[in-house]
This record gives sequence, C-alpha cells and structure tokens, in this order.
Amino acid sequence: MALTLPRWPAAKSLAKPSERSTHERLQATLRKSDEVLSPRMLRKVLTALEAVIDARVSEVEGGRRAHAVALDYLAADPGERRDYWALMSEHFAADAETLKAARDQHQAAVGTPEEGQAEMRLRRALVSPRMRLLQRFAVEPEGMRFLVDLRADLLPHLKADQRLLALDAELEHLFSTWFDVAFLELRRIDWDSPASLIEKLIRYEAVHDIKSWDDVKNRLDHIDRRCYGFFHPRLPNEPLIFVEVALVDRISDGITPLLDETATPLQPAKATTAIFYSISNTQAGLRGVSFGDSLIKRVVETLQAELPRLKVFATLSPIPGFRGWLVKNAATLVPLLDEKRANELGRLIGSLPPTAERLLAAVEAPGSLADPKSPLRHWLTQCAAEYLGRAMTDGKPVDPVARFHLGNGARVERLNWGGDPSSKGQKQSWGLMVNYLYDLKRLDKHRAWLANGRVAVSGDIEGLYFKS
Amino acid sequence: MALTLPRWPAAKSLAKPSERSTHERLQATLRKSDEVLSPRMLRKVLTALEAVIDARVSEVEGGRRAHAVALDYLAADPGERRDYWALMSEHFAADAETLKAARDQHQAAVGTPEEGQAEMRLRRALVSPRMRLLQRFAVEPEGMRFLVDLRADLLPHLKADQRLLALDAELEHLFSTWFDVAFLELRRIDWDSPASLIEKLIRYEAVHDIKSWDDVKNRLDHIDRRCYGFFHPRLPNEPLIFVEVALVDRISDGITPLLDETATPLQPAKATTAIFYSISNTQAGLRGVSFGDSLIKRVVETLQAELPRLKVFATLSPIPGFRGWLVKNAATLVPLLDEKRANELGRLIGSLPPTAERLLAAVEAPGSLADPKSPLRHWLTQCAAEYLGRAMTDGKPVDPVARFHLGNGARVERLNWGGDPSSKGQKQSWGLMVNYLYDLKRLDKHRAWLANGRVAVSGDIEGLYFKS
Amino acid sequence: MALTLPRWPAAKSLAKPSERSTHERLQATLRKSDEVLSPRMLRKVLTALEAVIDARVSEVEGGRRAHAVALDYLAADPGERRDYWALMSEHFAADAETLKAARDQHQAAVGTPEEGQAEMRLRRALVSPRMRLLQRFAVEPEGMRFLVDLRADLLPHLKADQRLLALDAELEHLFSTWFDVAFLELRRIDWDSPASLIEKLIRYEAVHDIKSWDDVKNRLDHIDRRCYGFFHPRLPNEPLIFVEVALVDRISDGITPLLDETATPLQPAKATTAIFYSISNTQAGLRGVSFGDSLIKRVVETLQAELPRLKVFATLSPIPGFRGWLVKNAATLVPLLDEKRANELGRLIGSLPPTAERLLAAVEAPGSLADPKSPLRHWLTQCAAEYLGRAMTDGKPVDPVARFHLGNGARVERLNWGGDPSSKGQKQSWGLMVNYLYDLKRLDKHRAWLANGRVAVSGDIEGLYFKS
Amino acid sequence: MALTLPRWPAAKSLAKPSERSTHERLQATLRKSDEVLSPRMLRKVLTALEAVIDARVSEVEGGRRAHAVALDYLAADPGERRDYWALMSEHFAADAETLKAARDQHQAAVGTPEEGQAEMRLRRALVSPRMRLLQRFAVEPEGMRFLVDLRADLLPHLKADQRLLALDAELEHLFSTWFDVAFLELRRIDWDSPASLIEKLIRYEAVHDIKSWDDVKNRLDHIDRRCYGFFHPRLPNEPLIFVEVALVDRISDGITPLLDETATPLQPAKATTAIFYSISNTQAGLRGVSFGDSLIKRVVETLQAELPRLKVFATLSPIPGFRGWLVKNAATLVPLLDEKRANELGRLIGSLPPTAERLLAAVEAPGSLADPKSPLRHWLTQCAAEYLGRAMTDGKPVDPVARFHLGNGARVERLNWGGDPSSKGQKQSWGLMVNYLYDLKRLDKHRAWLANGRVAVSGDIEGLYFKS
Repeated sequence: MALTLPRWPAAKSLAKPSERSTHERLQATLRKSDEVLSPRMLRKVLTALEAVIDARVSEVEGGRRAHAVALDYLAADPGERRDYWALMSEHFAADAETLKAARDQHQAAVGTPEEGQAEMRLRRALVSPRMRLLQRFAVEPEGMRFLVDLRADLLPHLKADQRLLALDAELEHLFSTWFDVAFLELRRIDWDSPASLIEKLIRYEAVHDIKSWDDVKNRLDHIDRRCYGFFHPRLPNEPLIFVEVALVDRISDGITPLLDETATPLQPAKATTAIFYSISNTQAGLRGVSFGDSLIKRVVETLQAELPRLKVFATLSPIPGFRGWLVKNAATLVPLLDEKRANELGRLIGSLPPTAERLLAAVEAPGSLADPKSPLRHWLTQCAAEYLGRAMTDGKPVDPVARFHLGNGARVERLNWGGDPSSKGQKQSWGLMVNYLYDLKRLDKHRAWLANGRVAVSGDIEGLYFKS
Repeated sequence: MALTLPRWPAAKSLAKPSERSTHERLQATLRKSDEVLSPRMLRKVLTALEAVIDARVSEVEGGRRAHAVALDYLAADPGERRDYWALMSEHFAADAETLKAARDQHQAAVGTPEEGQAEMRLRRALVSPRMRLLQRFAVEPEGMRFLVDLRADLLPHLKADQRLLALDAELEHLFSTWFDVAFLELRRIDWDSPASLIEKLIRYEAVHDIKSWDDVKNRLDHIDRRCYGFFHPRLPNEPLIFVEVALVDRISDGITPLLDETATPLQPAKATTAIFYSISNTQAGLRGVSFGDSLIKRVVETLQAELPRLKVFATLSPIPGFRGWLVKNAATLVPLLDEKRANELGRLIGSLPPTAERLLAAVEAPGSLADPKSPLRHWLTQCAAEYLGRAMTDGKPVDPVARFHLGNGARVERLNWGGDPSSKGQKQSWGLMVNYLYDLKRLDKHRAWLANGRVAVSGDIEGLYFKS
Repeated sequence: MALTLPRWPAAKSLAKPSERSTHERLQATLRKSDEVLSPRMLRKVLTALEAVIDARVSEVEGGRRAHAVALDYLAADPGERRDYWALMSEHFAADAETLKAARDQHQAAVGTPEEGQAEMRLRRALVSPRMRLLQRFAVEPEGMRFLVDLRADLLPHLKADQRLLALDAELEHLFSTWFDVAFLELRRIDWDSPASLIEKLIRYEAVHDIKSWDDVKNRLDHIDRRCYGFFHPRLPNEPLIFVEVALVDRISDGITPLLDETATPLQPAKATTAIFYSISNTQAGLRGVSFGDSLIKRVVETLQAELPRLKVFATLSPIPGFRGWLVKNAATLVPLLDEKRANELGRLIGSLPPTAERLLAAVEAPGSLADPKSPLRHWLTQCAAEYLGRAMTDGKPVDPVARFHLGNGARVERLNWGGDPSSKGQKQSWGLMVNYLYDLKRLDKHRAWLANGRVAVSGDIEGLYFKS
Repeated sequence: MALTLPRWPAAKSLAKPSERSTHERLQATLRKSDEVLSPRMLRKVLTALEAVIDARVSEVEGGRRAHAVALDYLAADPGERRDYWALMSEHFAADAETLKAARDQHQAAVGTPEEGQAEMRLRRALVSPRMRLLQRFAVEPEGMRFLVDLRADLLPHLKADQRLLALDAELEHLFSTWFDVAFLELRRIDWDSPASLIEKLIRYEAVHDIKSWDDVKNRLDHIDRRCYGFFHPRLPNEPLIFVEVALVDRISDGITPLLDETATPLQPAKATTAIFYSISNTQAGLRGVSFGDSLIKRVVETLQAELPRLKVFATLSPIPGFRGWLVKNAATLVPLLDEKRANELGRLIGSLPPTAERLLAAVEAPGSLADPKSPLRHWLTQCAAEYLGRAMTDGKPVDPVARFHLGNGARVERLNWGGDPSSKGQKQSWGLMVNYLYDLKRLDKHRAWLANGRVAVSGDIEGLYFKS
C-alpha cells in the first residue's frame, strides 16, 4: 500500500485542548461581551466545538460531532447563535506561540535561501483550528448548506460585533477555494427543471420580480428565452447565480416587452442578439466569492455554439444608484451645463440660471417627464451618462451594477428612457435603463482601461458628457 | 442584482508584472541553477506564466492561457519541465513588501484587540501569485488532472532541488482543500463499472498484483467480494484510493484462498466477517492528502447497512518493512530471548548462545522455515510482534502499513505464517501477514493510546513480546 | 454474422400496391362517405400512406415518410383529419384473398395435426398493412405521442362513423402490447420533479381539481404525501396514470383535510394508513389499456418497503354515478323500505307512503340534508349502499369508480356523509364519498366473488342493504 | 377518475380452465409424445401454467406465479424443459369454438359492410391464452431475459418436434412487437462501457473472434474505431446486435490491418471512409426479428453528424457460403469459361479442356494460390462474382451475408484476394473478402432491383461475370 503523510496541517496545538486553556478563554469571552447563553451553556458549547477537532478522533467522527453541534445551533434562537459565532471566532485562532516563532523565523530569513521555507512555515502556522473546525462541519451531506447559511446569518452583525470578523474571514477564505469556478457546473434551467428549483428562482430573482408561475414559465419555456445558472456539487439543486436571457433581433430598450407573457416568441434561428436582462446572486453567505464574470462568458460560449447567428451580447440593466447619487451631486453638475441647455432648463423651471434644487423639484413634479422632448429628460440622460461613465469611487464605478459589468470588460452602450416603468424603476432612476455591451474581442482591453480609471462607453454616451 | 465584492484575495501586487522585475528575477534564476531551456525560452515561459494571472484578464481568459501553457509543458521533455517548476516555484512568491508590512503589523498587534484583524491581514499577504496561477490551471476540464500529474512528476526531484519546495507546498495546500473528504464520493466498483476504470485498478493495485482480467473479475464480480473507491468530481472515472474486500466467515489467515479464481463464493448473507485485503492509493501527486481513514469507515458503514450480520471488520495485510528492520535490529533482539528459547535456537543453528548473524543465516537457508514447529518460525513471529507493537519512530509505528491502520485506531490482532507465499511476500516478511482488527467502538480509544506511544494489540500478540 | 429471417410478417400483399387498386378503393371511399378533402387530395394522401409501407423501402425510410404524413395530418383541420382516419381504416385491411385461403385451410385442418400450423397461418393472414402503417408512425421519436393523440381525437367520432372501427381496434391492439405493464416504470412524482411534469398533473387531475401551484405543492411536497405515476419509455415525462396518496393515522372520512394547505403534516413514521384519494388516467388515446390495478399494487409495495408501519390501504373515492342512478331507480327502491323508515320519511315529506318523486324533491330542497340525523340522509346512505354493493350491469358494478376498485379486488368499506362538499361532489352524490379497502390478502378472493356476481362489502355496508 | 375498459382481449375462454379440460388435454399430450416428466409432474406443471392466466387473479399476481414457474423451469434439465415447451405450445391454443364461430361469421360477412367488424372479431378469437401466458412471464424484471433464452433453447428442437411450432410462432410474434425498432436505443460502446458489457462483445463476436481484452480494447478505444449496438429497455446492458467500425481513408481490402493492435490510429477528422467490418446478432432467441437494416442506417447518420468529412460507407465482409457453393456448382460454371481462360487453366492443371474436378483439386493443392497472377485466382474471383451477383434462391441471394446487405440496398463493390488469411477465412472462401457499398442515395433503388431479381454490383464485379 502506498502511504500518506499526515494530512496537512496537523498542527500540534490541536492535539489536546487543555481544560485550563478552555477555562481561561471562556473567561475572556465572558468579560468582554453581552452573551445570551449562560456561562454553563457557553462552556458546554465550547467543549462541544473543541471536541469536533480533537486530534484523537477521526474525520468521520469529527464530522459527526460537528453535525450534532449544528443541530443544537439550528435549534438556538438568533441571540444565542451570536454566542456560537463569538466562540467559533475567538477560541480557535492559530496558536500564538507557534505563530510568533514562525514570524520571527521569517523575518530572519528574508533575503536568504531559506526565505521560501520560512514563508511556508509561516503559512502553516497561520492555519487555525477554526479552519479545521469549519472543514469538519462540511463533511456531512448538509454541512455546506449549513456553513453558507451560517455566514448569511452572521453578515448583518459584522459591523456591530468586531469579534466576528475572524470567523467571517475564515469562511470567506474557505468558500473562495471550495466554490472555485473550476468546481462550478453551468446548467440550463428550463421548464423541465425541478419545480423546487424554479420555486427558488421565484424567490431569488432580485432584478425584476417574478410575479407568478405563469411569469416564470414565460421566462423559461419560450423558444426565445434561456436561463442559466452555476451549480456546485455540494449544494445540489441550488443555483449560486443565474442569468435570464432573451433572444431578440435588436438591443432591447425596455423591460416591458421582455416580461410580456402574451408576446409572440421569436424563432431562435432568427435571433441576432442575446439580452441578459436579469442576473441574480442567490447566496448571501457567499459574499465576496465572485461568479458573474465566468457565468456570462460561459453563457455566451454556450449560446454561440447553439446559435451561430447570434452576434450581439448585451444587457438591459437597471441603474440602481442613479437617483440617490444625483440628489447628492446635482449642485456640482448644474454649472457644467452649456449655455443653451441652461437657458432652456431655466425657462422651463422658472429660474435663471437653473439651480440644482429647483431642477430636482421639477423632475419630481408629477408628469414633468411625460414629454419625450422634455429638456428635463435630456438633462437627466446627460447626468446618467456622467454617473455611469465618470463617477468613480476607489478607482471603480460608483453604480454597483456598472461596477460589475464594466469590471467584466463590457462598455456602456445606450441609455433608454422609460425602460423600466415599474415603481422600483422610477425610484431608482426615474425609469432609465442602460445597455452594457459585451464585445468579446474588447473585454480585456476595456478591463485594462478601467484599471487605469477610464470607463469604456459608446460614442453616443460620450456625446452626452458635460463639456468640462 | 446583488453584488459581489472582489474575489478574495485581489492582491494589488498581481496587477502588472513590470518588465523589469521579470528580467531581474530571471537573472536570479539563471545565476543559481543549471537550466535546460535557453534564457530566451525561459523568458518566454515566464512571460506566459505571468500572463495567466494578469489581473486585467478574466478568470476564463486566464484559464485559457493556463491551458496553452499546459500544452507546451506537456510537450516539453523531463529536463525542460524542471525549468517550468523552478519558474513557478521561484517567481510567484508572495509580495515581500506587503508581507513584511503585514508581519510587522501583526507583531505590534499581538495581545491587542486588533490581533485578529492583523492575523487576517498576514494571511492575505501570504496568499501568493503562485496560488492564483495554480488555481487558473484548474479551471479547464483537464486542469486538475494536469496539476496532480505535475506534482507526481515533481516529487522525485524535491530532495535534489530545494527550489521546488515552495511549488510542492503550494500544491499540497491546494489539494488538501480541493480534495477535502467532504468532496469525495464513495462508489462501489464492480464488474459493471467501466472497463477503463477497471483497467486502472489493474494498473494501480499496489498490494497483490492483478495478473489478468480473469483475476480482476474474480475480485469484483463474485457475490462475496466488494470493491470501493473514493472519487472526486474533477477527476471523473479515477479512483483516488480503493479497497478490496472479501466477505468470509472467519478472519482470513492467508491471501491464497482470497485470490483463488476457482473458489466457491460464500452467500453474502452468511458472511460474518469483512476482510480488507488490499488498499491502494493511486495518485502519487496527492501525497500528503489522506483518505484512507474515511474510506475504511465509510465502507464499514456501507457494508453494515447492506449486510447486518457482518460483525467483524479486519484486514489481511503485508508487513513490508519487517525483514529489513530485523536484519538491522536482530543483534538487539537476540539478548532478549529467554533461556529456553535461546538454547533451543542455539542447538538448531549450532551456536550457543545464538548470535544474530547465525540466526539470520539460518532463517535464510533454503527450507529452514518449512517445518511448522520450527523454533525459527517462533522466533520470527516474536520479532514480528515486537516490530509491529513496539518499534516506533517519531512516536509512530515503524512499519508503514501498521502506521496507517494503527493510526486509524485498529489493533494488531494476529500474525499468520505463510500468509503470503508470493516472492514479494517472502522478500518483505518471509511470508508472514498480519490482521489488523477494526473494532468500531474502540477506534478512538486506540488512537488516544497511540498518541501516548502505546500500540493496541490483542492478548495473543502481547504474549509474544520478549520479556525485557 | 448470424443471420435474421425476414421480419415477421412480410406479407407479400404489401409489396406493390398497384395503381389500379388504389384507384378502385378510393372510388369506394368516395361513394360511401362525405369527405372534406377533395378527391385529388384524398388520392394524394392515400398515395403517401401507401408509400409509407412500400415493401421496397427500409424501416428507416418508411419512418421518415410516416413522419412527413404526420406533419401534414397535424396541419389539417378536424374535418380533414377524419378523412385521414377513413383512409387508414378502410384501405389497409388484410388481403382478402390471402385471408380467405387461410380461413379455408384452417377450416379443413381443425382436428388434424395441422391445426396449429393452420391457426398460425390464419393469424399471419390477419396481420394487416394497417398494422405495419401504424408501426412505422411509431418509429420516429415523437411517433408514439402522435398515435396516442390521433386515437384520442378519433374516439369521439367512433359511434357516428363505423368506418373508423377498424383503425381504432388496430390502435388498441398495438397499444395493448406496447404499453404492456412490463414496459411501464413506476416513478415517484414530487416537488423535485420537472415543472413541466407537475403542470401536467394540474391539467390531468380528474377527481379533485388542482387549483394552483400552491395546491399542487401541498399534494407533493409534504412529508405525509406521496404521488406515483406510471411512465413509458416512448412517452417520456408523461404520466400515463397517477395516484395521490395521503399518509394518515385512520381511514379518512372527507376530502377537505387532505386538501388543506395549512394542515400540519404527520410524521410518516407515525402513519398507519395510506389513503389513495385521487387516481387519474391521463391519456384518452389509451382507452382500453388498463394500468390501475398494477399501479395500486406497486404503490402499496413501494410504501410498505419504505414505511413498514403502514397497515391499512384504502381509497377515499367519489361516487360519480349515484345521483343519476338514484333519480332513475328511486321508484324501485322505495317499496323496499321497512315500515318504520317508510313512516319516518313519509312524515317528513308529508306523503304517506312516501313516493320516489316526493322523496327526491325533498332531498333536493335547500338545507334538507343539513341535519346529521335527517332520515333523508339515512335513506340516501342506504340507497348508496345498494348502488355500490348490488347495482350491476353486465355482471359488473354500475358505478365506474366502483367497477375499477372492486375489479381490483377491493371491498366497499364505509360511506362518508359530507365527504366532498364541493359543488361537483354535491352534483354527483350529494357529497357522499366512499372508502374502498385494499386488503392485500383478500384481493384475489374478492375478485373471484365478483366474477360470480357478488360484491365484497364490509359488515357496516351490508347492514345498510334493504331487506328484500 | 377516467375509466378504462377491460384490457384487450379479455377472452371469456380464459376465465376458468376446468379440471376436465386440463385432464383431457394432458391425456392428448401423453398419448403422442415421449415425455421425460412423469404424468404427475406434467399435471403439476400444467396446473401451475394455467394458474398464471387465471382470469381471477391480477396481472401482478399472475406475474408472480409466472416467476415461480420460471424458477422451476430453470432448475429443470434439458429433457424436462422440452415438456414445458410442449405444454405451453399445445395447451394454450385459442378456443376452438370461439374461433370457429368467428371464422364462420367472417366468411358470411365478406363483401358486406360488416366485413371489417368480422375481421376484428376473428383476430380477437385468435388471441390465445398462450399469448397471455407469455405476457405474464414478461412482467417480472428478469422476465424478458427468461423468454428470449427460452426461445434460444427451443429453436434447435423445432425441426424434430413439430408440436413446438405454435409456441415458437407466438414468441416470434410477441418479440416482433416488443422489440420493434421504435423501442430500441442506439448506444455507442467504448472503453468506458461496463466491463460486463464488453465481456459480452468478446463472447458474441461472430465474424472475427476477439482473442483477448487487448484485442477488444484495440477495437473500442482507438480514436479511429467505433462500435455501436442496439439496446432494449427490458434487456439492459445487453446489446441485441452490434457493429464494429473502422475509420479509414480508403475502402479496406483486408482484415489484418484493422485488427492490428500496433497500428497507428488515423485522426478521425481525416477519415473519409467508414468500414463496417463486423456485425453480430447476439440473441439467438430473437431469430426472425430484424435489426440490422436500422442499425446500419442509424450508425451512418450518427457518424455523419459527428464527422462530416465521411463520404463512403462500406463493409468488409466474409463470403461464408462461397466454397461450399462452388464445390457443388463448379461443373456448371466450367463450360462458361471463354476459350482463352479455359486454355490457360487447362494448361495449368494438365487437363484440356479443364474439368471442375481437376480445377477444384488444383485450387486445394498447397501453395497453388500463392502467385498473385495465378489463373486459378482469377477463375475463383470470377466464380465469386457469379456467386454474389447471380446465385439466387427463392428470389434472394444465396450467400447469407450478401442476402443481408443486398437486402438493405447495398451493392457488391469489390472482391479482395487474401482479405482474410485466418483459417476460418480459408475454409469459407479461400480468404476472399468482399466490400458491400452503402450508397445512401441508391439504397431504395437497389432494393427495388432486388425485388425484381437483380443484384446491384459495381462495374468491376459485372466485368467478372462469365459471358453466357
């Protein structure tokens, strides 16, 4: 029999958590926080958690113990759960002494031939019992589901309770490896998919709410529709992210026809354009693990293989942050108006020169945007172009959807008035929608531009910028 | 659309490998080693590797570039491959400055409330471009196969070329996570399994060679035989480890009846005992990633569910290191003989008191062990009991197979003369075989003993120890 | 290569339909019916049909020609389709001469050793070109679907147009073989089944209408519910028949709690009783092909294997023909009332002795059945017992649902007032429902009784019979 | 619940086999044959068989009884099995009276509007209890396997024991429907197929024996090889027929390179020609059920879809009947030689004019055919052309392989000297092999020619015919 070395890492510190250290650590937790569980219960939970990674028990037995802890956790109420998180976060750090030794060794080795070795040793010293603890939760069939949900529960408390940061970071690190794109499977979701899966689409759809089973059937069952999701072997029947696609003959300028259940489907063979009109992440617990880039590229490949006539791949996207941003930044933008536009707007709102306050009030007045030729519309469109193409924060686009698509290498292609007549659309962007174009040959070029602070936009969009 | 933060970690240091740094690093490599590739080729390969992790390209594009590099690598000859390894090992270390800053910060934070945060930062700083490089190789369907084979190629050169240690450690770390037991699927392998899979069993079987398709059919297709393997979603149709089991009515004392193609199969419902007579790891590239413990436990669970009458689970194992060990240690053991045995042996070999040298010569003499009552046999059996039950190194059993089973919590149950009459069996242990017993209720207790340096053995084995 | 004899039967008569015979037969069709298609079109269709079975073309080519005909048929309007049926029915009969010869030969051979041979020859002579025609339609993937739908279309016209009988009989014969129980697969249908399949349940459910996706989820997704269907390899994702089951702790006496979406599910392990509360055939085109018997038995076996505590298997069934039957037969039943009951009823309706007419009028009066102690209720219950237990036609129970379950060997167990408060329930049976009990050990005995004209009923039901 | 009419046919004659009739029939059997089973056993088996179709029991129960009979049958020895066959054949004929009535009715109805109805009634009357008996055997999972094997056992006894004809015909009829091409699935068999399936290929290969697992791997695992089989849902993992294909760049002229395990594979994308070099039926029990025509056409379609460059589809086939035929017919052929050839041959064999006897003796003389220019070779080639292209029996080619391929519409393309150097090849045809060409556009034309007695051959083959 070929042999195996001990599983990496088998840190000595895991061997036998002494009674004393458990007691001391617990005191620390008790001193600094507002537990819900009694000290007796806290001690019991901590003992149970430590038993999970007892180096003397096998992985299988460790997995079973983790499963028992998980059942207790699930039966606990929200306040009690926070105590579990705190224990998992605080009591399973890497061994301080080992870490110190490795750190010092590394410091001494920098620049010598031993540097590589020292770096490895430092990394091993950083592998915490917490990581092993979480790995053992993952052993049982439902374990991955448990961990992803645990993190989803935990995330909202992160700001208020810094103790939990270590646990969160550990989970994010593990998920980044476990949910590596290499492990994801792209699957088409259609009307032959399990009802339980389609029910999840209804629940998870985050862009254009699915109103009924007829609505979702409309999005899945027509010959001119496609839906694809990424799936992971340890979360079966659970899409991690999914995208809804319409096959059309030109870039869509509004969401209404795409959601119309009575529309006549287009023969896919006649479609020239694929519109990605909704992309939804489903697992809050996987925050920080990105799939969207790969999803869109693999969907494009899949569609091209099936329908060689498809040439244009674009989104029809909301502009969720526009209205909030404009309210804050209008005062900066008004002075950039050229004279002609400024006069036009001023006359309309009875204030020459126009002020940001009055302009915004006019925009909000009922019916003020009804006229397709309204100068207010033109002004808002210009502002939206500025917002999407030039408003940056930390070197990235301000708008979260723009950040995603531009980060993938798409470009801002076209703004569409009245694209989303829903109240959500009105609230986000006065109904404006935008197309991001995925020109496969230019994605990497656009990404390089973005790294240098430049957003790729079409000529039309560029023409809308204020001359400054 | 819900948003995703950038994938963890998006180290800035990955952004744009400057031409200069590439050049400098290359010079370093050229200075210190004996490359096979020309400097021009080395530069070309390094540039290609750096392009794989160029932060401006997407994961999908990165995966494609990795695939292209992989094809070049596969076309390279063994000497050239070592240059690839050296480049991957030396040129993709974590950024030294970032690492230094994080290390210093951690040093300052120890004992403060910021310690946790500092630890996280240190861990992120340790995530190397090398890790990202390897992850991108894994994106393409055949990528995991590629990486596992690459490490298998690399391992034999590790001792001679310390430069490669970093790459090896990085691979081991990634494999430990990717091949976590949580991701493995236990599958029965039988005569309905793909021929291509069964062909692999023939190739990988490491304990009792499979001689022909008839032989393997005998091990898979009889109602009293089982074979189970662990499989991973990214290495389909490839067993990572597999175990062969015979269902019998008492603990087997020799391998011959188990491999006999003409034996009458036992009705499984009548079997009381499952004998694990062969366990083989198949992937040299996964050294250090342990599956055996989980495999045996899950096989036991599977068998118990199917055949509730099974009560005894034991191995029939070789003792591969015995002969080599005894040759070295006989001189130490001879004085431990009690007087009666010493006289008996001395008379037999014509040397009173017996010497180690003479004893070993007698053992090797043709036919000397043929007599079941031979005092030499008894002496060897005693020595084997010592070897398995008391010979330790670094706190672990010396014998590699013993180390595996005893590490799982099994105990040394029985020694069997003539258990393996093959020439390999003769060469390893004069044909002696051993049964390790898996008593499910005592596995953890035995593991705890072992951690304290005590090997669990049966009363019979204990009775064989020399009184010292 | 081993050889194959010509496919059975390769009747010579199929070889070359002569132009003349086509013409003559067509004239016959034209003379006797009221075609919708023009003579030119009729001739074209007939030629196309004959080309399908042209003995010179291969099965594959024949299949393709059939497919082309099928597309034309599907594009035809209902009137035109009848012409297709007439052509298929009339023009593809067995060859008259061959048949006559075989018939005469058989007549001569009766009682001689050649009788068996002659019988075979007669059977072969009866294999019609029509059978081969239909077989070729079945070759293409959608062919089976086509034939089943064709027969469903055809059935309503059978009474009015005797010409179609031959085609119908041929289809029924083929379906009886193709849909043999041996070819059917029992599958559980649950909330993980394809949405497209569950949508079919909604459409096909024939007993208790499924009102919404929430309703169907209630029937499929609760731990105390099961649904099973029979599937055929050539009609994938299409249940031929399905049964809905509730796991309960006593025999249900009404449908309302079973359809209540807010009811608390029972732990299956605690269930003692399985209630089959809805059985629906889905394919009108398979009329005459019976699956129900096997379905229930295999569902019972499946449930028993999964839940050994289940002991009682019963239905909760409508009594669809009761009201109609009672209206017709009340006059016969009234005289059977015993004196006490007659007086009681007579007083209630103000007519002594009571007459059938007045009794029925009283039953129909609003609110007349509201009182649980109403003598009218008792009378109706007695009549229902008579109806289910003694009303026979052609040796079989009059009520179609009774015919099915009693034919399977069940017995009439209990009548339930107010079992079905829906308007359909009122209309069929004033809301009365019945349980049929499947006592697995007595099914065959009950079937034997039924063959002798005796219906198996419980003591309670027997006690309700009128003493005559 | 939608209702089902009674399963077609529910002949009354099946209802209750009376004790008397069983006795009488048994006497008949006893009188006329040489049973192996004792009268007591015969009676017992007959009773068990009759119980299977007892109209009072359900299909499920009937299936179980059939299963019990099947187990007894399988435990019986060959002689006893013949008694089972005789009982099944003789005692389950259609009811004579019903049949007589239906026959007479039909006679009277010929030419009247009732003819169709009468025909249907006659068909129903011909449905025998035997058919129902066999159908019930098929209910259990292993039932189809049982029936196919039963017929394979039965076939060799058919000539000697005419009593069995009825059972054989019934089985053939059922199999023709059950194994309709519409139910068959074409599957590729490759090196990833189950070992148990590949083992069957080794056993079933009927043209060029598979010598070892290396040999079969060579035929399945190379990129320029394909193997396809037809599978039936009720005989899983059992190919009914399979074909082995080589992808090459010209029509192969010999089998040796195709079976050479050391040959370098051709890139499939470069292949222009698919050679079907072995076609084997596997189930003797399905004699008379033809799959080969469909198999080849569907394989051609599959290959064309995958490899559009493939243009030529041909066989490399043995000529199994040639030698035997020539020995019988040489005397007729010799006079057809033209003068030049006759003289040439006469000189060679020392007999002018040459005689058939001397020619054949010369052919058989060792080494006589070694010279490629030997006039004997030319003469044999001419004779082979005659044999394949003009020797007919009952309107069909004499050679069984020719009958199969020409019946499919292929043409005789080329004769190949030394095509099969194996001893089997020598014995069948002095090593001559033939290519049949499948020109997809001409298959139907060639079939039509064949129906008129003309075999399609290439110009080369035609040029070899003797001028008569």
